[in-house]
Amino acid sequence: MTTSFQSVGEAFTKTYYSLFDSNRSQLLPLYREQSMLSFEGSQFMGAQAIVNKLVELPFQRVKHEIVTCDCQPTMAVQPNGILISVSGNLVIDDNVNPMKFAQCFHLLPDPASPNNFWVHNDIFRLNLG
Amino acid sequence: MTTSFQSVGEAFTKTYYSLFDSNRSQLLPLYREQSMLSFEGSQFMGAQAIVNKLVELPFQRVKHEIVTCDCQPTMAVQPNGILISVSGNLVIDDNVNPMKFAQCFHLLPDPASPNNFWVHNDIFRLNLG
Repeated sequence: MTTSFQSVGEAFTKTYYSLFDSNRSQLLPLYREQSMLSFEGSQFMGAQAIVNKLVELPFQRVKHEIVTCDCQPTMAVQPNGILISVSGNLVIDDNVNPMKFAQCFHLLPDPASPNNFWVHNDIFRLNLG
Repeated sequence: MTTSFQSVGEAFTKTYYSLFDSNRSQLLPLYREQSMLSFEGSQFMGAQAIVNKLVELPFQRVKHEIVTCDCQPTMAVQPNGILISVSGNLVIDDNVNPMKFAQCFHLLPDPASPNNFWVHNDIFRLNLG
């Protein structure tokens, strides 16, 4: 539970939502063939299938506001992954009232470049009232 | 993403909240020395420290209602962990209105008994309105 996990996780999260909110197709390099996405209960595997799903979401404008971002290392041995649990608000198109969401990511380091991380697991849910 | 991950994760989640809601001290065997808990932003490490925190929470009666429970395998190689993301409602003492919560668990198998899992990571947050 060193601070590096928290800072890497927070930096990843900011980058992820910045790309998501500006151009979802740019998320492709963050996923790989082994990546998994559970989006509102639907499951997708592989970078292209995941990004296809995200790109096809039926809204024009979207903004993620991060409220909390908790990070932990996921393995006792190397290579060490990072678990990120995010809660936040989602503003879509011209809607005045944001929706609450919860998303968790499990990042793994690139063996060839251990300071670079990719998304092995991604679970997204709206928290509807 | 075989169904076994989902069934193991769902069974774990039901057991976890059943123990939590009846006698929190019984959660001790689910954690180990390497276990981590982030509870509303505070961090704890080790089974005893984690359970001490949970036991000391200032309410008499608590009930977790699971709304969604998404599970994914966390590693491409053995031993395979399980990531669980739960959303639900929390009813405390005599409060009429439940609070929303989000919690994620990362389970790892016991090397000596691979069908038994323990909690390596645990992140809990209330989703306040």
